[in-house]
Amino acid sequence: MRSFALAQPTHGGNITWAADLAGCSPSSILDFSASINPLGPPQSAIAAIQANLATLRDYPDPDYRQLRSTLSDTHHLSSEWILPGNGSAELLTWASRELAELPSTYILTPAFSDYLRALRAFDAIAIRCPLDLTDPALGTANEDIDRGLQSLLTLSQASATSGLLLNNPHNPTGQLLTREAILPLLDRFALVVVDEAFMDFLPPDQEQSVMEWVQNYPNLVVLRSLTKFYSLPGLRLGYAIAHPDRLRRWQQWRDPWSVNSLAAAVAEAVLYDSKFQQQTWDWLIQARSHLFQGLSALPGLHPYPSAVNYLLVQCEHSAVDLQQQLLKRDQILIRDCVSFPELGDRFFRVAVRTQAENQRLLSGLTTILEACN
Amino acid sequence: MRSFALAQPTHGGNITWAADLAGCSPSSILDFSASINPLGPPQSAIAAIQANLATLRDYPDPDYRQLRSTLSDTHHLSSEWILPGNGSAELLTWASRELAELPSTYILTPAFSDYLRALRAFDAIAIRCPLDLTDPALGTANEDIDRGLQSLLTLSQASATSGLLLNNPHNPTGQLLTREAILPLLDRFALVVVDEAFMDFLPPDQEQSVMEWVQNYPNLVVLRSLTKFYSLPGLRLGYAIAHPDRLRRWQQWRDPWSVNSLAAAVAEAVLYDSKFQQQTWDWLIQARSHLFQGLSALPGLHPYPSAVNYLLVQCEHSAVDLQQQLLKRDQILIRDCVSFPELGDRFFRVAVRTQAENQRLLSGLTTILEACN
Repeated sequence: MRSFALAQPTHGGNITWAADLAGCSPSSILDFSASINPLGPPQSAIAAIQANLATLRDYPDPDYRQLRSTLSDTHHLSSEWILPGNGSAELLTWASRELAELPSTYILTPAFSDYLRALRAFDAIAIRCPLDLTDPALGTANEDIDRGLQSLLTLSQASATSGLLLNNPHNPTGQLLTREAILPLLDRFALVVVDEAFMDFLPPDQEQSVMEWVQNYPNLVVLRSLTKFYSLPGLRLGYAIAHPDRLRRWQQWRDPWSVNSLAAAVAEAVLYDSKFQQQTWDWLIQARSHLFQGLSALPGLHPYPSAVNYLLVQCEHSAVDLQQQLLKRDQILIRDCVSFPELGDRFFRVAVRTQAENQRLLSGLTTILEACN
Repeated sequence: MRSFALAQPTHGGNITWAADLAGCSPSSILDFSASINPLGPPQSAIAAIQANLATLRDYPDPDYRQLRSTLSDTHHLSSEWILPGNGSAELLTWASRELAELPSTYILTPAFSDYLRALRAFDAIAIRCPLDLTDPALGTANEDIDRGLQSLLTLSQASATSGLLLNNPHNPTGQLLTREAILPLLDRFALVVVDEAFMDFLPPDQEQSVMEWVQNYPNLVVLRSLTKFYSLPGLRLGYAIAHPDRLRRWQQWRDPWSVNSLAAAVAEAVLYDSKFQQQTWDWLIQARSHLFQGLSALPGLHPYPSAVNYLLVQCEHSAVDLQQQLLKRDQILIRDCVSFPELGDRFFRVAVRTQAENQRLLSGLTTILEACN
């Protein structure tokens, strides 16, 4: 059934690959595979780029003082606890170099595939702890990852010298851990890296970031991304929050100007764009609920409840076949899960997009699934 | 005499630091410390940015197929021999990781200080081979680096397992090696990394790139930068040319989207901008000659002949004092050389800028040096 000329990509958002398959231009692809906010980029970001084109002829400040000061102001943390990076993926690389110094690193799987890339880059030993995913038809939301965390807590003493690479909210399930659930792990593991790439999608009264604990736990690293919430994955911008000694070490390893000047300028603008933030939170609660209900109503599809802007869907058909048909018929790209060995071809992931776009996805799926039955 | 509140930077182009000292805004600094083409960025670059703002909401293609195809076309090399990076500094990091696997790596010093950062990042052992810099007053151009190379060739057999990190044209002296002079080193060292960051400043009939040899020498890596010639250091873009196996290894180590989409789009535009390239070569030959003569005529200053867009100047006064006075009096920033242990406080480096800007530098220096005498 698999007739793709090109290898299946291991990340969402590969619209060059998708356009080749769909026989259209990349700009014609409706991309549900990358979990990017469809409301962005905000006007404040585009304005910051336009206003800073003239700065491209200068090197960025290697200390990124202005950007760090903005992040410091936003998170009420002194700026030496914050290190901007060329996307959080760059910072994951350096975090993984430190994890590789430990005998092993635990990850809950399925996990974002870039974790394994980064750990492998430094020959770190990854120990996969598979989540026991409940049948979504049972409707018991958010308990799988809590059980996964419990299993980490009952590990033998080996964990005292081990690393832990966590993802909260969890990708690809969309499940959220409370910060209280994470706390005991900080006493249990030698180094805990919490990737909070999607935490911004939760409104302030619901978010569960552990970043405030870095000052009490020198073994804690928090990774954040600005490119998903603000829809700028092409610009590359993330940051790490951790003990200053650790961040200084990373800065001595990497090149001095890893964040481009436009990304730095954009961050300084969007972090104060409270209007865009509120619009996103308002859109998400409605659009996600509508998409969830629409998917649940389709034959053979079972979405998992999600705290963020994507939904993992269990399906009774081949997800790769569904993906291929959607691409060729509707130029719609969904994220297959074959790169997650724990999931395979019976799962896919979709971003929550605008109501109209979600409706296009639901219509495409309806036509294809009706033809299957 | 040193009254700076902030530590002296180890790279040129730190205008944030300079503006603090001069008591002005960064945009008021006339920067001779970073060796950036003053004619750029070209209009083609700005147009490419404007035309590609909408692509920021998509992830870059992790294979950078379009960009690699443009570079492949430019250099007549198949695209798997080319890997774009977030500035050549990112690629230097991965090259250094491979150099660190060898017992030692030789560098000709003074050397670009980021070489030591990258080598240290992976605990590589660097062996410094100091150039014996002729007194520039003797006017024997370009022989120091040739002698330096000769000394590398007469090294004991240790070199057969060692690495070599070369810079051509050499920074900070501006001296150029011929490709024939480099060739014997490729048989002598286990891994040779040639940083050609400034090679574009030489017209096609004078350039001495060794990139065509990568197909015969799997132990050769060439690093190139696009941000100096095209005046876009804030955008970050470089590339490596080396054996495909090596580049695939680097790509598995680093994050999948290290080059931002705007940098990729700009590269595709500027590499075909032959008008800007010709303008730059025409400007440089005249402006460099004028600046060289102007500096030579000043009391106590002795510039070295240079093949590129910067001049190393020996001076009979403290270069840091000169730097400080130029900053405070004229908001002009020159590159002191105290971060090069072989040079110290009796050398500085200046970029070649436009005729009018070079004249501003010469006037500022004249006033300060006359007051000294």
